[in-house]
Amino acid sequence: MGSNSFGTLFTIITWGESHGKAIGVVIDGCPSGLELSEKEIQQELSYRRPGKNPYTSQRKEKDKVEILSGVFQGKTTGMPISIMIKNEGYNSKSYEPLKEILRPGHANFTYLEKYGIFDYRGAGRSSGRLTAPLVAAGAVAKKLLHHFHIDLVAYIKELGGLSLPDCDCSDINRLKKKVHQSPLYCPDKKTTAAIEKKLKETIREGDSLGAIIELIANPLPTGLGDPLFQKLQANLAKAMLSLPAAKGFEIGAGFLSARMKGSLHNDSFTLNNQKKIVTTSNFAGGTLGGITNGMPLLLRVAFKPTSSIRKNQTTLNMKKEVCRFSPSSDSRHDPCLALRAVPVVEAMGALVLADALLMNRVCRLEPEH
Amino acid sequence: MGSNSFGTLFTIITWGESHGKAIGVVIDGCPSGLELSEKEIQQELSYRRPGKNPYTSQRKEKDKVEILSGVFQGKTTGMPISIMIKNEGYNSKSYEPLKEILRPGHANFTYLEKYGIFDYRGAGRSSGRLTAPLVAAGAVAKKLLHHFHIDLVAYIKELGGLSLPDCDCSDINRLKKKVHQSPLYCPDKKTTAAIEKKLKETIREGDSLGAIIELIANPLPTGLGDPLFQKLQANLAKAMLSLPAAKGFEIGAGFLSARMKGSLHNDSFTLNNQKKIVTTSNFAGGTLGGITNGMPLLLRVAFKPTSSIRKNQTTLNMKKEVCRFSPSSDSRHDPCLALRAVPVVEAMGALVLADALLMNRVCRLEPEH
Amino acid sequence: MGSNSFGTLFTIITWGESHGKAIGVVIDGCPSGLELSEKEIQQELSYRRPGKNPYTSQRKEKDKVEILSGVFQGKTTGMPISIMIKNEGYNSKSYEPLKEILRPGHANFTYLEKYGIFDYRGAGRSSGRLTAPLVAAGAVAKKLLHHFHIDLVAYIKELGGLSLPDCDCSDINRLKKKVHQSPLYCPDKKTTAAIEKKLKETIREGDSLGAIIELIANPLPTGLGDPLFQKLQANLAKAMLSLPAAKGFEIGAGFLSARMKGSLHNDSFTLNNQKKIVTTSNFAGGTLGGITNGMPLLLRVAFKPTSSIRKNQTTLNMKKEVCRFSPSSDSRHDPCLALRAVPVVEAMGALVLADALLMNRVCRLEPEH
Amino acid sequence: MGSNSFGTLFTIITWGESHGKAIGVVIDGCPSGLELSEKEIQQELSYRRPGKNPYTSQRKEKDKVEILSGVFQGKTTGMPISIMIKNEGYNSKSYEPLKEILRPGHANFTYLEKYGIFDYRGAGRSSGRLTAPLVAAGAVAKKLLHHFHIDLVAYIKELGGLSLPDCDCSDINRLKKKVHQSPLYCPDKKTTAAIEKKLKETIREGDSLGAIIELIANPLPTGLGDPLFQKLQANLAKAMLSLPAAKGFEIGAGFLSARMKGSLHNDSFTLNNQKKIVTTSNFAGGTLGGITNGMPLLLRVAFKPTSSIRKNQTTLNMKKEVCRFSPSSDSRHDPCLALRAVPVVEAMGALVLADALLMNRVCRLEPEH
Repeated sequence: MGSNSFGTLFTIITWGESHGKAIGVVIDGCPSGLELSEKEIQQELSYRRPGKNPYTSQRKEKDKVEILSGVFQGKTTGMPISIMIKNEGYNSKSYEPLKEILRPGHANFTYLEKYGIFDYRGAGRSSGRLTAPLVAAGAVAKKLLHHFHIDLVAYIKELGGLSLPDCDCSDINRLKKKVHQSPLYCPDKKTTAAIEKKLKETIREGDSLGAIIELIANPLPTGLGDPLFQKLQANLAKAMLSLPAAKGFEIGAGFLSARMKGSLHNDSFTLNNQKKIVTTSNFAGGTLGGITNGMPLLLRVAFKPTSSIRKNQTTLNMKKEVCRFSPSSDSRHDPCLALRAVPVVEAMGALVLADALLMNRVCRLEPEH
Repeated sequence: MGSNSFGTLFTIITWGESHGKAIGVVIDGCPSGLELSEKEIQQELSYRRPGKNPYTSQRKEKDKVEILSGVFQGKTTGMPISIMIKNEGYNSKSYEPLKEILRPGHANFTYLEKYGIFDYRGAGRSSGRLTAPLVAAGAVAKKLLHHFHIDLVAYIKELGGLSLPDCDCSDINRLKKKVHQSPLYCPDKKTTAAIEKKLKETIREGDSLGAIIELIANPLPTGLGDPLFQKLQANLAKAMLSLPAAKGFEIGAGFLSARMKGSLHNDSFTLNNQKKIVTTSNFAGGTLGGITNGMPLLLRVAFKPTSSIRKNQTTLNMKKEVCRFSPSSDSRHDPCLALRAVPVVEAMGALVLADALLMNRVCRLEPEH
Repeated sequence: MGSNSFGTLFTIITWGESHGKAIGVVIDGCPSGLELSEKEIQQELSYRRPGKNPYTSQRKEKDKVEILSGVFQGKTTGMPISIMIKNEGYNSKSYEPLKEILRPGHANFTYLEKYGIFDYRGAGRSSGRLTAPLVAAGAVAKKLLHHFHIDLVAYIKELGGLSLPDCDCSDINRLKKKVHQSPLYCPDKKTTAAIEKKLKETIREGDSLGAIIELIANPLPTGLGDPLFQKLQANLAKAMLSLPAAKGFEIGAGFLSARMKGSLHNDSFTLNNQKKIVTTSNFAGGTLGGITNGMPLLLRVAFKPTSSIRKNQTTLNMKKEVCRFSPSSDSRHDPCLALRAVPVVEAMGALVLADALLMNRVCRLEPEH
Repeated sequence: MGSNSFGTLFTIITWGESHGKAIGVVIDGCPSGLELSEKEIQQELSYRRPGKNPYTSQRKEKDKVEILSGVFQGKTTGMPISIMIKNEGYNSKSYEPLKEILRPGHANFTYLEKYGIFDYRGAGRSSGRLTAPLVAAGAVAKKLLHHFHIDLVAYIKELGGLSLPDCDCSDINRLKKKVHQSPLYCPDKKTTAAIEKKLKETIREGDSLGAIIELIANPLPTGLGDPLFQKLQANLAKAMLSLPAAKGFEIGAGFLSARMKGSLHNDSFTLNNQKKIVTTSNFAGGTLGGITNGMPLLLRVAFKPTSSIRKNQTTLNMKKEVCRFSPSSDSRHDPCLALRAVPVVEAMGALVLADALLMNRVCRLEPEH
């Protein structure tokens, strides 16, 4: 399987460069019989679209989704679903002066070292734009999850050091609504306001901020995830760390676990009101031994601050000469690219869960229904 | 590929349960011509062996490695390398009373939910013992890396909240020596002493502690890692989160990145004394766009505290009855299982790098040498 | 890896249905630095195009190839190469009456049984049209092979029982020229004429014919193919049997081997004029133990006669009623679809060899150049 | 996935060399809850064992099977099933003189060219002995198939040119019984006798014979096989052509299809006595479009004559000198190795079907039961 593919049964492959003719994704392994329309995918992409708020860059992308195969009479056929988004509204010329510079935090250096050639226009294949096909594929995965009554939502948990109180994940619909209402995918109004202020400051400074995105999936059946190397958290970690600018992943109490004692961290089993086995706490974050235990899945992804900033920087050019790198003030510039990553984290989570759901059908002699 | 396999070209599959006849690993894809002996693998396993210090449990494992295939006249043949370790010195009977209890933090509940059957003896397949084959496979991967002058070392970065100052990763051999001298895989003497004290306290309390392990690989060639979904950090994250008790992963500045500004986080390119392109800082942790940039690889993995503690706990039994769970005081018990994970993190890192090294041979028309 | 993917390092995934918006292929794993243009791929597709001769159906397909990604400044970048061909000039209405009929030899029955839904228009995903993306991908694989001086050619070896004398595979260019000159991809003029006569007869009868296609690749380096399950012939067999209407595969003496004695079948080693090790005969067909031995690769694929015939047939309809099935006389109808499979066999051969070529770079410590 | 693995969900990896310490297989992906014992696997291996008849070589192999993991309390647990067979009773010394010779029809030349090193003892990894783990894995696959009431049997269809009349595959148990009664896995007594005569002659001549093995699986559910590249016949072809000495594969009418007209070859749909949809003939051999249509699966595999013969041969040695190669008359020597391949063909068929059976659980929204 090539390095641009992801998944075991519900698989995707993405293709395209930021300023090529088009970008796209092929989903192979989506079961037949799932209702699917371009409109639904389009909605997910709109949710991601730059220009949604004043803090994300204003490329005039229409991001018009086309389903080219795999859907017939409004339903999936079990055949590959090819989804294409034409590239429009970009200006490759503005990248001409940049191609001679080893831009700090960018991948042009490593792509050139590895491949000897790099489509530098709009950061080529390493562009954040390549997350659009992920969102499109995630939309299909979400439809599959919804069919099995699984829901999930991602949101800004922390931005520029400003963090959110813990969310109530028992009512995921209510949480979702709050996230969708915020211009910053942040379910808390106060934090949203504080972050907005910080973002404006940062834009003025020509600088950028990092952030932490949290993902919750609930309700989840038990049994998702396959030991040893397809543990749910292992696949989720891979999914998240493959996103541009992602620098960390944690599940449940995550890095905080390292500072807890076992007597605290251990989630005790108990029965809830419906006599279902649950745990009294959820420091594990929804899995035990890599397999879902029926508790909400809870994970976080850390994103570095946007590498493209307006501030002057000193670096090298292709001739190995020291140079001063001063982007023109009108260049596109996201003060915090993690804002655009929220729907992407949600999409990747959906892809991993959809795959685990299918894998779970083949793990025992008589499949559970 | 089954869920017990890992890797694309340098692949492994592990098999076995804690109290079965044996455990093992098959490595498929190791190039021919590599010198390899049982002794070298044995050394790596000894490094991991429980009983190395008073803080890890005392199972009388000999962990005698046998290479069953793939090596001829002291060299690898390019054929699968089958490595087996017989299980000895265990006592399955002590697990009999536990099999009726949903032990907090353990995987018996989820395995039973998923598979309808679970080899509960010694935690079966979910046991930490299954990391021994990973260390064995990692030993082979390390040999391959050493052939290409790549070295790596893991160590305790933080334990029970006590953390280490930043390590100097320019001289990895010196660092390694310090790590090997410590009974706690901790390169700093003062921190080692403080942690020892804390461990003793925790043992008295019948409780357990979590920890953070750091991994450094250096020197690394540029070009390792394959976008988009085989980014080096994506495969490393998957590798690490597939380990028992791992709860978080970060590369470079990791979660701290989320609190940094772009102007600080961006590692500027410059020339070092040998006129080689390097970066002035290494917040990225050794990769850009998922591909190594020639700087040291730097990552951390968070481990939760050991789930098996001596303290009493309340939970459910298999009949869904609330029960009090009080392990006998003589049962084996690691106050911090992360101590045993240090060589495992090193092994998993080596496996990912060895795979990336081979993948890097096929990415361009004329391979670099 | 989804079931629409093929290959380990040089991988493809095809998508699309006969009468959908478009069909296409994504190649992932083609090394960077290979010169590639739409024109070259277009040429290969023209070679396959229906309408080339009076014996293949006359769908007005332009089959205009578009490269959507992975090529920059005329060279591959190492990123996925997405190739799309829009579907044009088809008439789905003519398939309306057919959708209620279980057509003998067609896949609509099995697709419906498996998926519960089938895009019946133009035979949907099971259409021979889906071999066009294979030819496009094969064109890229051929470019890679040519770079390493490997050439290959497929041709009609037998059609309707009329077979060709053994070809001289020492001069593959000459052989290729002859094949390209024939309207029937048949390097022998006499046989071509005899087959033409037979085809005309068969058209008149409203019936169809099967055929055998032979593939030769030469010169080949030693070392291609990876035991045990990626033996060159194993991957070739899979590649060929995945083609529509393919019913058999053989390498070297193939089924005839079963009637030979060992003393005859064993190809003895000897030195040729250039003091290179060769074999005196080539009953093996170019591999030993699944690895190329430097002799020409020689294989054959058997294709059944076209299932769509004009003759009346008795079968069932979807309501399980017996029905008489009489296609209108003007419907499109290939007397021998194997004629259109010749470039496809060549393409699949190229894909397998390209993959083996890359795999061969990672099998030993110091790669051969 | 390494080249020694096979399968997508029901996967195997084999390891070992003919004269190493042991050989084995790891099965990953067998569902939990399947009853399994060493005894059952042992029976399948005994069926394959050399020494069963006077026409196969007399290595004193006990082939004692050990299940090392994945089975608990007599049932599979869903974890990897590791099966080991120790190597005993071999004499590596007899291979010493052979190691300097490029033996006609053997793989030592190509292995050396590819890997630069070859475990020549007993033909190392390329030995027919490596089919024993396949038979062991096949035994597990058969258990799974039997649970779903699928049965299959392989037998000698032709040997040394002597062929069998078509078998009645409606009563597979009766057919199996006949095959098991024959010393030559041949369900027809007359043919068995004729072949025995021919084998004796051939042994006297110091020569060897090829053969064709046929495999029938019946009854089969509809829906097994996944287009485009996991078509059932594609995976079967790969499985069979990965066997030592296999030179050809065909399904249904196979190569004969190429000489049939469409009006004959098309299998018409009709209803059988139970009002089930069947076809009036079975030239297709059980699949349409790569998916089972409910008719018996019917395929054939061609095997070349044994390469090791007693007759003198001229070839080269490692120094590229012409040499006369005269095996000592007492060396082990199978007049027809296809005889030992019969259980192997059955095993490979079972592995492919078991995998397809699991894959078929994930192809539609609501799985069929």
